[in-house]
Amino acid sequence: MRVLLVGATGRLGCAVGETLTGRGHHVITVGRTAGDIRADIADGDQIAAVFAQASGLDAVVCTAGDVPYKHFVDMTPEDYLSAYRGKVGAQIELVRQGTRHVAERGSFTLIAGILNREPIVTGSAAAMVNGAVESFVRAAAIELAPQRINAVSPTVFAESMAAYGHLFPGVTPVGVDVAAAAYVRSIEGAETGQVFIVQ
Amino acid sequence: MRVLLVGATGRLGCAVGETLTGRGHHVITVGRTAGDIRADIADGDQIAAVFAQASGLDAVVCTAGDVPYKHFVDMTPEDYLSAYRGKVGAQIELVRQGTRHVAERGSFTLIAGILNREPIVTGSAAAMVNGAVESFVRAAAIELAPQRINAVSPTVFAESMAAYGHLFPGVTPVGVDVAAAAYVRSIEGAETGQVFIVQ
Repeated sequence: MRVLLVGATGRLGCAVGETLTGRGHHVITVGRTAGDIRADIADGDQIAAVFAQASGLDAVVCTAGDVPYKHFVDMTPEDYLSAYRGKVGAQIELVRQGTRHVAERGSFTLIAGILNREPIVTGSAAAMVNGAVESFVRAAAIELAPQRINAVSPTVFAESMAAYGHLFPGVTPVGVDVAAAAYVRSIEGAETGQVFIVQ
Repeated sequence: MRVLLVGATGRLGCAVGETLTGRGHHVITVGRTAGDIRADIADGDQIAAVFAQASGLDAVVCTAGDVPYKHFVDMTPEDYLSAYRGKVGAQIELVRQGTRHVAERGSFTLIAGILNREPIVTGSAAAMVNGAVESFVRAAAIELAPQRINAVSPTVFAESMAAYGHLFPGVTPVGVDVAAAAYVRSIEGAETGQVFIVQ
């Protein structure tokens, strides 16, 4: 399949790219600072430019989404709006524009995250956007068919524990390869409107 | 208790106001076009003006949230952003500012809705914001304590079936009084971080 991979330079994006390439897919990478196509998907015009360069797609997958982490008392309205734009609005726009560039039975796989199910201190914006992404996926699925759409919701990665482990006391991390497998399930499987929880 | 009721002129708001007044609470109503205090909570400055006029609160409850309903192919980025601002950003700001005006063990009760669990055609923005509100509530609860925060998630109201029933084929509606009771449970009970599903 021809797969557009957005967020290809992140830890998860790299793992998804390697996994998909290893399974014989042709992966076109999109990143802000590296990749086959350079773009910031928080900007709708840059998303349009991406699809102008990458057509005939079977799948669009996203592993990117910027969200601020702060104690609730330190959060501002701008922080929540920034979280919305970075992880919700950007991914919705990727789907909204992408429907015209993806095969009739192609798929979209978005990134959510575990914090809406298992919250942590400083995670109120992250939780909010993860819930938004999951819910959008469930609702959009019934209108997009026969195109499919799913989300992957991973817990903290083993590879990230040195940096973020202090925020997840007692949480068992998963390898980033397990999350990459969830992307494979979404892309090569037949399910839609699902949230694949990776923990 | 002194309860600030935002969205007091809507169908649900009226029912919540009547129910709370009937239980002996002092209800201060906030609405865009009517109520004790006139304000549009989509504007943070107007929220500040509300709290300047209504202090010493035991509970803040919201029954208001504007969201566009359109087929997915007709949705624009502005529609999703408008949904975020109208139902997510506005309610988060009500909580963010409200923490300083609500009693130490006071509560917030926000409005979500069933469409993130049971999506309908034209409901992708509504689903997205409902999921965002639920997830925010779960995450904020662990940081707000001992203040409490919950959400009420009602299905379609019996009183709204004439207007919206065609969008909910086969769905059993509930009376708006059942949703009002969920607000009572949130305000007078001791739970936090919960989503009270009303269906």
